[in-house]
Amino acid sequence: MTQVWLNGACLDGAEARLSISDRGFTLGDGIFETLLGIGERPVWLAEHLARLRAGASELGLHLAFDDRAIEAAVIGLLRRNGFARSAVRITLTRGPAAKRGLWVDDQSSPTLLMTCAPASVVSEPQRVVIARTTRRNEHSPLSRLKSLNYGDNILARREALARGAADALMLNGQGHVVCATVGNLFLRIAGEWITPPASDGILPGIARGKILSRMSVTQVSLSETDLRAADAGFISNSLGSVDIVEIEGVPLRPCLSGLPVAALYETE
Amino acid sequence: MTQVWLNGACLDGAEARLSISDRGFTLGDGIFETLLGIGERPVWLAEHLARLRAGASELGLHLAFDDRAIEAAVIGLLRRNGFARSAVRITLTRGPAAKRGLWVDDQSSPTLLMTCAPASVVSEPQRVVIARTTRRNEHSPLSRLKSLNYGDNILARREALARGAADALMLNGQGHVVCATVGNLFLRIAGEWITPPASDGILPGIARGKILSRMSVTQVSLSETDLRAADAGFISNSLGSVDIVEIEGVPLRPCLSGLPVAALYETE
Repeated sequence: MTQVWLNGACLDGAEARLSISDRGFTLGDGIFETLLGIGERPVWLAEHLARLRAGASELGLHLAFDDRAIEAAVIGLLRRNGFARSAVRITLTRGPAAKRGLWVDDQSSPTLLMTCAPASVVSEPQRVVIARTTRRNEHSPLSRLKSLNYGDNILARREALARGAADALMLNGQGHVVCATVGNLFLRIAGEWITPPASDGILPGIARGKILSRMSVTQVSLSETDLRAADAGFISNSLGSVDIVEIEGVPLRPCLSGLPVAALYETE
Repeated sequence: MTQVWLNGACLDGAEARLSISDRGFTLGDGIFETLLGIGERPVWLAEHLARLRAGASELGLHLAFDDRAIEAAVIGLLRRNGFARSAVRITLTRGPAAKRGLWVDDQSSPTLLMTCAPASVVSEPQRVVIARTTRRNEHSPLSRLKSLNYGDNILARREALARGAADALMLNGQGHVVCATVGNLFLRIAGEWITPPASDGILPGIARGKILSRMSVTQVSLSETDLRAADAGFISNSLGSVDIVEIEGVPLRPCLSGLPVAALYETE
């Protein structure tokens, strides 16, 4: 198994174990980051750590290591595993609970786990559908944090696969189209690039932020009607971006090769 | 530490350990039940197991033990721990993941964990507030399942405690008042008992079902305005029911001593 890092210790993944009372496990009481490693270089690590700290602060989770210690651990993990391209996951939870209860104001033993898996360069262009099983909750701060509460996204992805698609676009409670199950959505409508605003209940992705700084993109809510007017689109996350070539049976044109998106991941 | 049961093995809780790749931990990909034990008697076990099976079926989780095996394990756990009154938790997850990915159609190694903690007879009457930090997502099937995705409930409870209350009532996306953070809501308005319907995004509690079969209760959506007209109310879950004596500073009359609710837990 791959090498992992758990609360300061470097371990074989098969040996690393969690307490059965870890609140990440019992209640989804934690957050995570997934970032790209190219060789021994973690991509956009500073941005991921800033988002991890912001999420920890919002949920009252304690991060017991400073950024330099985490950076050293991530680079050590990339080195020991030796993949050409890696998906690094950093998970922070409130840790094992000493007693039952929904809220425990105990910051004494958080769990910080870092794992590493091989990542491919780029995925195939994707056919997507609109998830009908579930929706995102724009009324929850968790919709804008990378919390462990991924149940709705799992349901949406499972529905997409059952319907013969690679991924699902998710609606929020108001019926706006907001994102894919693990990435932000960008659509070209009447020549203009559009992405939903954070207030619609999306994770403000690190890659999304980079794209917004490099391309002219309008942040505005999208209806299902808007979707039908799109002629191109893509999904982005920290591991890469993929073209959307079909939404609910309607074809779209591949567009990423003409955009300054793919190069983002390689050059920073 | 207390004795636990993990995938067929009886262990000391301190020795029981989980894989770091358990999808319950990484993605909240699982469900649970909490039930009352009085001595060696699990209360409403058949109902809890039926709900556990229904949730597993809806999420595509595999329950590798039949009801008789689980019943024997629960009774064994109550016996070995020896508490007069117990909170038993049964947690089922998709188990360790062999690879990354949001949806993995692998039912080969689910995690089934049962733990036991001492429970008190009855809690104090509670002052509650209405959570403003977050809301429940009635568009998600998870709002009607006891999934591991408890992040919103944790936020609401934390807010309640910060505001000097014991618990919070939660709104759904439409602004209906739907439940407390770990229990169903019953209110008396103009002499009539009311509880929100499942379609409003509540967990259909086992205790709630028992109460509906013993008392005349109307299932109808509640607005914040309705709340102000209530003169009594209580919160129920499988461990017990508690009077609400104040909502957002407005006093309510204790009522449970005059209702056939407390006795429910003791007599079945």
